[in-house]
Amino acid sequence: MAGASPETLDALLNALRELNARQIRETQQHWRRTLPFADYIVDRWDKAKALGFSEGASVYDSCLVLGDVRVGENTWVGPFTLLDGSGGLDIGNNCSISAGVQIYTHDTVEWALSNGRVSAETAPVKIGDRCYIGPNVVISKGVTIGDGCVIGANSFVNRDIPGGVKAWGTPARVIGITCEKADSSD
Amino acid sequence: MAGASPETLDALLNALRELNARQIRETQQHWRRTLPFADYIVDRWDKAKALGFSEGASVYDSCLVLGDVRVGENTWVGPFTLLDGSGGLDIGNNCSISAGVQIYTHDTVEWALSNGRVSAETAPVKIGDRCYIGPNVVISKGVTIGDGCVIGANSFVNRDIPGGVKAWGTPARVIGITCEKADSSD
Amino acid sequence: MAGASPETLDALLNALRELNARQIRETQQHWRRTLPFADYIVDRWDKAKALGFSEGASVYDSCLVLGDVRVGENTWVGPFTLLDGSGGLDIGNNCSISAGVQIYTHDTVEWALSNGRVSAETAPVKIGDRCYIGPNVVISKGVTIGDGCVIGANSFVNRDIPGGVKAWGTPARVIGITCEKADSSD
Repeated sequence: MAGASPETLDALLNALRELNARQIRETQQHWRRTLPFADYIVDRWDKAKALGFSEGASVYDSCLVLGDVRVGENTWVGPFTLLDGSGGLDIGNNCSISAGVQIYTHDTVEWALSNGRVSAETAPVKIGDRCYIGPNVVISKGVTIGDGCVIGANSFVNRDIPGGVKAWGTPARVIGITCEKADSSD
Repeated sequence: MAGASPETLDALLNALRELNARQIRETQQHWRRTLPFADYIVDRWDKAKALGFSEGASVYDSCLVLGDVRVGENTWVGPFTLLDGSGGLDIGNNCSISAGVQIYTHDTVEWALSNGRVSAETAPVKIGDRCYIGPNVVISKGVTIGDGCVIGANSFVNRDIPGGVKAWGTPARVIGITCEKADSSD
Repeated sequence: MAGASPETLDALLNALRELNARQIRETQQHWRRTLPFADYIVDRWDKAKALGFSEGASVYDSCLVLGDVRVGENTWVGPFTLLDGSGGLDIGNNCSISAGVQIYTHDTVEWALSNGRVSAETAPVKIGDRCYIGPNVVISKGVTIGDGCVIGANSFVNRDIPGGVKAWGTPARVIGITCEKADSSD
């Protein structure tokens, strides 16, 4: 890793800075939004398509996607997220996976405690259709969440959540049911 | 999207890697800090200026800024943040918006539950002057936070917080008052 | 900051997009993972080495590293993290610093409240060997965490945690002891 002259690197850096300034101006003008630089490079729908996600799904550049992850139609995946499918991850249609959500199908608790002798453990996660997973929610390995659930912001979900409920807390507990305002059968 | 040869892409990738290595060395030497690559491209004060934020405000590259967002003088906005002004967001002077903070003026709870039939709901958020919003705090739509507040790390704020208090928890509750150590009248 | 023609910027943007598409394809094929764009530029082990971290340590591009930070052997540092060594930060061997973790050795609470008149306060943090620090954990200035600890997801740690325990919550409290499944003496 050597070769480019300082002048070449300066020119590249300047061009990247000009590019960012232009994209900020244009995106602000057309969409009234300003994105992290890499999101001007990485189209959210293209990235979802490249990952084999279903029609209409989108995923921000900063999302890490590991292993086997299936994502259903029209599901929105926000920035600063982590979708770990190393143990198998299945997310349904029309879900909102808010910014900062981390969904795990493995953990490294025993790896750390054993000084690296014990491997990570895995278990699959399944999230149904029409779920709202709030900002910064962490879901741990082996969990199933049913259809039409709302998981409150900053929750940690480490056990199954049945369909049609609101759950909240660390660890998350069911606190009510969700009322669907429109026919969701189609 | 095709055209560049594999050799051209390799050369670009190598130049980007050299550029990052150089910026790490220089930034470490001069500022004793190492940043995400894009933060070498995007100046925090320039980004704030391009967004119309007030004098002295700064915002990291990874912050997403949506819709109408007003940010006051000298306010610091950290990385991995989301400022959603789709319903109108107003942040005062000299605030510390810590890393991982997400401030919403819309939510997609009903959008998800209704299978996409119901649109997102919006409501404005206002944060006063001299507020410390702790790491990973989530503020939901419709909330007003007064001047001189401290919101503890990992809190979820879903109702108004009066000025001059500390609040903490999910949902956040007032746990005490703040004592200003210096005259804050100017 | 002016000079490059619109055509030059378009060509750069297209090349960056093609590069990302290629890296997604190749990384997906070889490693079954898809990364934020900048993580194709920034090698996790190279970044750790450039920062003086110990053998086998790795750190994602999106991690901000400020001031004096020491990281031990084989410690893994995830994305969307912040390691603040402005007051001195020491992390041991074989730790797992999960995605979203923020470790502070300063805070700006009084800076915000005093309208910028009072400087940030600092105090060192020390984390022992073989610790698992869960996703989105925030550790505040002045804290010491012993060897072989597990800190649960979404916790806020603002006081010392002795070695060999599990702690959880906001603020974090000890909830049990950790059992090491393998000899950790070497």
